[in-house]
Amino acid sequence: MSERFEPVDQHWEQRVLESFARQGAMTLLGARILHLKPGICSIGVAYRPELSQQHGYFHAGVTSTIGDSAGGYAALTLFDAASEVLTVEFTVNLLAPAVGEELVAYGQVIRTGKTISVCRVDVEAIKGGKTTVCAILQQTLMRVEIPS
Amino acid sequence: MSERFEPVDQHWEQRVLESFARQGAMTLLGARILHLKPGICSIGVAYRPELSQQHGYFHAGVTSTIGDSAGGYAALTLFDAASEVLTVEFTVNLLAPAVGEELVAYGQVIRTGKTISVCRVDVEAIKGGKTTVCAILQQTLMRVEIPS
Amino acid sequence: MSERFEPVDQHWEQRVLESFARQGAMTLLGARILHLKPGICSIGVAYRPELSQQHGYFHAGVTSTIGDSAGGYAALTLFDAASEVLTVEFTVNLLAPAVGEELVAYGQVIRTGKTISVCRVDVEAIKGGKTTVCAILQQTLMRVEIPS
Amino acid sequence: MSERFEPVDQHWEQRVLESFARQGAMTLLGARILHLKPGICSIGVAYRPELSQQHGYFHAGVTSTIGDSAGGYAALTLFDAASEVLTVEFTVNLLAPAVGEELVAYGQVIRTGKTISVCRVDVEAIKGGKTTVCAILQQTLMRVEIPS
Repeated sequence: MSERFEPVDQHWEQRVLESFARQGAMTLLGARILHLKPGICSIGVAYRPELSQQHGYFHAGVTSTIGDSAGGYAALTLFDAASEVLTVEFTVNLLAPAVGEELVAYGQVIRTGKTISVCRVDVEAIKGGKTTVCAILQQTLMRVEIPS
Repeated sequence: MSERFEPVDQHWEQRVLESFARQGAMTLLGARILHLKPGICSIGVAYRPELSQQHGYFHAGVTSTIGDSAGGYAALTLFDAASEVLTVEFTVNLLAPAVGEELVAYGQVIRTGKTISVCRVDVEAIKGGKTTVCAILQQTLMRVEIPS
Repeated sequence: MSERFEPVDQHWEQRVLESFARQGAMTLLGARILHLKPGICSIGVAYRPELSQQHGYFHAGVTSTIGDSAGGYAALTLFDAASEVLTVEFTVNLLAPAVGEELVAYGQVIRTGKTISVCRVDVEAIKGGKTTVCAILQQTLMRVEIPS
Repeated sequence: MSERFEPVDQHWEQRVLESFARQGAMTLLGARILHLKPGICSIGVAYRPELSQQHGYFHAGVTSTIGDSAGGYAALTLFDAASEVLTVEFTVNLLAPAVGEELVAYGQVIRTGKTISVCRVDVEAIKGGKTTVCAILQQTLMRVEIPS
């Protein structure tokens, strides 16, 4: 459904990785970027008891956080070097318990605009090699100029 | 806008606190329940660099996580002892940077039903005694029977 | 929760009414503006069988449409004369069947910004003098310059 | 992303068409079902000035209404004969002006559950043979027993 996107800044990959590295919350979760392409970003996090809700599954907050980041960085891949990305809002539907050794969020840009970008994100739980879509997100992002 | 609600289980407060204590993710964030009333729950978290995004503010994932929990536990206050609460979905709008020493989420039930409950949540950042609404959520929850 | 807002254009009321009058869809529904204040707009529509879903209640599309318009015009009250309003996205939770003689949407601005505004909207059904909140919305709007 | 779905009631198509025919609001819009498969429904509406917003495009309320219906009927294709479908909530992002001769909403089921179903919907505007995705929805639906 989403068209192919062309990056406008040739250093897009480095910009995304540097922004990701500055997020203390991603380090706290142990999240890492698995895959980057123009308009696409996937982020994974391994299970630890500290990431659980009351039944021992991944907490919905973890699911939402990596989902939000995967969409945000997917959008950032298409921005020029003078712009950064802000989440305006997102909706997350929790489809199934997030049970497994790993959680992976796949963000993809549906529309990139001068001000507003829109992404869809799927979050999958991987348990014993089997993947289950445990959440889907729809997300609005805004391009803002980096203050000089 | 929201009507007054009556709890159906007299041990509602204890049930909520016990469920909260079982969430590893709440401990990881350092979140704590500040206030509980039938249909109302507020949750606070103090700032630490590990909870930051790339500019040193609270990460949107933290905002969303405590917002989701505040709504979920507000709904749980009205359930009977044989039921627990699942988040079906939520929408979060990020209104302002979450800058400050503390973040507090105020969840309130708008509708409690046999299956579906709906909450609104405000998240405020507190900096030097001044509060700013930094996020609002709208949330759908489901009542499920605790497996015996 | 929402602060008081000051309009920046003294002709805000006239601008809102003129924009509303140009919407063929509002005429088709028979919707009319009931109340306008800076940051606030309410819109009502009387029941007709043409506005029904399969059980004879107001269709969720009608509920969403007047809810979206009430939030959009609430935001527009605070804009300057050179700006118009676009809905970026909205979420609507349907809380109860929309049964009654009239449906009224109450939109209020939560945040007004240079680019992005955020509203909350309640939609109430009125039946025999008794009102029921049948839907709530959370909505993101964008200020755009009117092309000259 | 969405798996293939099997209908449980062999008369699923007839049930969907009958429910659609009972919706006065679909008749008012001039909407019609274009395509039905298990887990899939598309709905189209031709342009008329009565369906416009203030610039003469399709009103966002029309976009939302046929989007909501396309998702709802996609979910209904998978229900048994004793169940009907209610929209719990939906989020709609408006991506581009809905300009054209026709608007078509494509709903697809992402998850079908005992109580909750979740759909994604794309709405496209068709102008001179060229299609543009003008809105995307994410939607939560509930299965309810038809009162006997």
